[in-house]
Amino acid sequence: MLDVLRNRTTIRKYSDQSIAPKLMNELLEVACRAANTGNMQVYSIVVTQSDSIKQALAPAHFNQPMVMQAPVIITFCADFNRFNKWCLQRDAKPGYDNFLSFMTAAIDSLLVAEHFCVAAESKGLGTCYLGTTIYNAQQIIDVLHLPELVVPMITLTVGYPAETPEQVDRLPLEGVVHYETYQDYTIEEIERIYTYKENLPESQQFVRENNKTSLAQVFTDIRYTKATNEMFSAMFLDVLKKQGFFLSKQL
Amino acid sequence: MLDVLRNRTTIRKYSDQSIAPKLMNELLEVACRAANTGNMQVYSIVVTQSDSIKQALAPAHFNQPMVMQAPVIITFCADFNRFNKWCLQRDAKPGYDNFLSFMTAAIDSLLVAEHFCVAAESKGLGTCYLGTTIYNAQQIIDVLHLPELVVPMITLTVGYPAETPEQVDRLPLEGVVHYETYQDYTIEEIERIYTYKENLPESQQFVRENNKTSLAQVFTDIRYTKATNEMFSAMFLDVLKKQGFFLSKQL
Repeated sequence: MLDVLRNRTTIRKYSDQSIAPKLMNELLEVACRAANTGNMQVYSIVVTQSDSIKQALAPAHFNQPMVMQAPVIITFCADFNRFNKWCLQRDAKPGYDNFLSFMTAAIDSLLVAEHFCVAAESKGLGTCYLGTTIYNAQQIIDVLHLPELVVPMITLTVGYPAETPEQVDRLPLEGVVHYETYQDYTIEEIERIYTYKENLPESQQFVRENNKTSLAQVFTDIRYTKATNEMFSAMFLDVLKKQGFFLSKQL
Repeated sequence: MLDVLRNRTTIRKYSDQSIAPKLMNELLEVACRAANTGNMQVYSIVVTQSDSIKQALAPAHFNQPMVMQAPVIITFCADFNRFNKWCLQRDAKPGYDNFLSFMTAAIDSLLVAEHFCVAAESKGLGTCYLGTTIYNAQQIIDVLHLPELVVPMITLTVGYPAETPEQVDRLPLEGVVHYETYQDYTIEEIERIYTYKENLPESQQFVRENNKTSLAQVFTDIRYTKATNEMFSAMFLDVLKKQGFFLSKQL
């Protein structure tokens, strides 16, 4: 079992084999056994299989080919809408139109996503998370008709693998784990932690192809730039306001 | 393997048995195989075992007994500090002092938390998530010495189980899963989704003990009230600003 968790790789190419509805149902049942806050289950799972809706979602994910190619696209959402409606029907006054409640629901949705992901991988399925979900949340809200108090957090493409990629590198464990309290990184530690990654042939190729002088510059200048991060920050904050998770007085 | 995921329950009581360092190391290695954004691994894992630091953390978690009783307390943090430092050492201009980057790091930290959680449970360990981490993040930052661009997201208490609780209920699957697009809930659907939960003897006892007329009121009036949610919203936003994830111009 630990091997499933240890040996996983992200799968971006899928075979034509569809996922049996019975298996999908089982995986969703299992996913919902993930821990959640106060057993409120403040998340929703939107399972998209139709080509027309995948096509409508694709631009939000920058047309990454997995969206059209995977048999199933799952959008995990922070969701206080259902709980809110239940409260209103039970003479209970909900107070979930705020940032903390959004964060609570976001946490629930991400734990259930990863629980699903592991379940799917244990059954031989391949998955790929799309981080673009929070970049273009409004587009996804429009396509999936997400009501107030629902925000898409992450998307998983799922299917039977049609590739067997090598595992990519990870930082050495001492680079990400701290014992007792956080020990901030010295210059020498940063050097040591990133040496292996920087010396990989694929990293060096990445630097050359992009005409940069360091791998870090590929991230800061091309992949995750200040300008786009700030643009998407503003867009995501607008989404949270529009979906009802920020009272104006809070800002 | 699916059974580990399916049959899990939250464990709040732990035996005296400590977790072997070799096993802990293996679980942490495995946890880091979780998917993450652009392979930046923008998270840190703080593993606390000393009684004095647990004691210092306990008030932030409202003195829930698991904090002192569990052999290991793990605080999963959104962390752009390490990546930021690396960029600065590599003549790359980081742009991660914004809300999107916080969300990205938060997502990474939660996926790795759940990957760890499943790994631990597959080895017979019991776990309990503490959602209090985002309520009292500043206290945790102070105790764990978290620098700028690091925010604690969720805490997991881990140990060998000294209890075998029954699984708690979940909403029926059709209550949380939507196919193709989100179908908003009708009044009748909300009734149906929550009937089972409301009729559980423990739910009814909960309502009686708290002198309420509905289970929903136990949530809105006692467990997760509007006033405390708004207070913790303001506190968590302040933490994000202080840790450097919000430029004032963004608000």
